[in-house]
Amino acid sequence: MTLPPAVAAQVRFDERGLVPAVVQDAHTGQVLMLAYMNAEALAATLRTGEAHFWSRSRGALWHKGATSGNTQRVVAVRLDCDGDAVLLLVEPRGPACHTGAQACFFRELAPAGDAWRPLPFAPDTRHEHAA
Amino acid sequence: MTLPPAVAAQVRFDERGLVPAVVQDAHTGQVLMLAYMNAEALAATLRTGEAHFWSRSRGALWHKGATSGNTQRVVAVRLDCDGDAVLLLVEPRGPACHTGAQACFFRELAPAGDAWRPLPFAPDTRHEHAA
Repeated sequence: MTLPPAVAAQVRFDERGLVPAVVQDAHTGQVLMLAYMNAEALAATLRTGEAHFWSRSRGALWHKGATSGNTQRVVAVRLDCDGDAVLLLVEPRGPACHTGAQACFFRELAPAGDAWRPLPFAPDTRHEHAA
Repeated sequence: MTLPPAVAAQVRFDERGLVPAVVQDAHTGQVLMLAYMNAEALAATLRTGEAHFWSRSRGALWHKGATSGNTQRVVAVRLDCDGDAVLLLVEPRGPACHTGAQACFFRELAPAGDAWRPLPFAPDTRHEHAA
C-alpha cells in the first residue's frame, strides 16, 4: 500500500514521517479534529475513501471509527502551499471526538483570556441515543 | 508576556514547545492555514487580539500580516480534547497565503488519487488590485 509517486513527491512529511491533517465537516464547515498521517495512512485513506491516521500514542495505523463506528467518508483531500499540512473534507458518520462531542475543539478561551471554558454545545449528547 | 497559569496548564506544547494552530475564517468557515504557536505566540495573540505564531523557518515570533498587512483579528481561541491542537476563528484582513491565495489549502487530490491539482479559485487574484 504505497502512495502514487506524484502524490508522495509533494507532501513534506516531518522527521517522524508525519504530516498534520485537519479534518473538516464537508457540509457544515465545522473543524472536527486534528490528527497525523504518515504515508501509509494517506495511502489507506485514498484506497478506502475513509479517513485513516497514524496514532502517535499507539504507534499504529488508525482507521478512524473502526471501533466506535464513527467513520469519516472522505470527500476531498487538500494540501497546503508548502506541502506540510493536509485538509480532509469529510462526511462524519458520528461524533469525531472520543468524548462524544461532535468536534474535539469544545473548549474556548473565556473573554477575559484567563481560562478555558467548555462550549455550550459540548460534550454533544445528541448522538448518545442514536448510537 | 506570559500566559495565565490556568490557560497554560491545559495546553500540551510538544517537545519543541509548539502546538499546531488551525486558522479558520470565522464567517465563511474556510480553513485558511495551519501554523504553530509557542507559549509566547499564544500570549501575544491574547494580548493583541491578532494572530501570532512561531515561525519555525525563521525561529522567531511571527505577527501574521505584520509585513503584508494581511493580519487576522482573532474572534475565538479553542483547544481540543487532549490539549495538543488549537483552533483560531479569525476575521482575515486579506489572503492568508503568501502566494496570494485566500487559503493555503489550494491543491486537491485528483479524483483518480494520482496527482495534486490546483483548485480553480486559487491562487486568488481578487485581492491583487485592492492591495
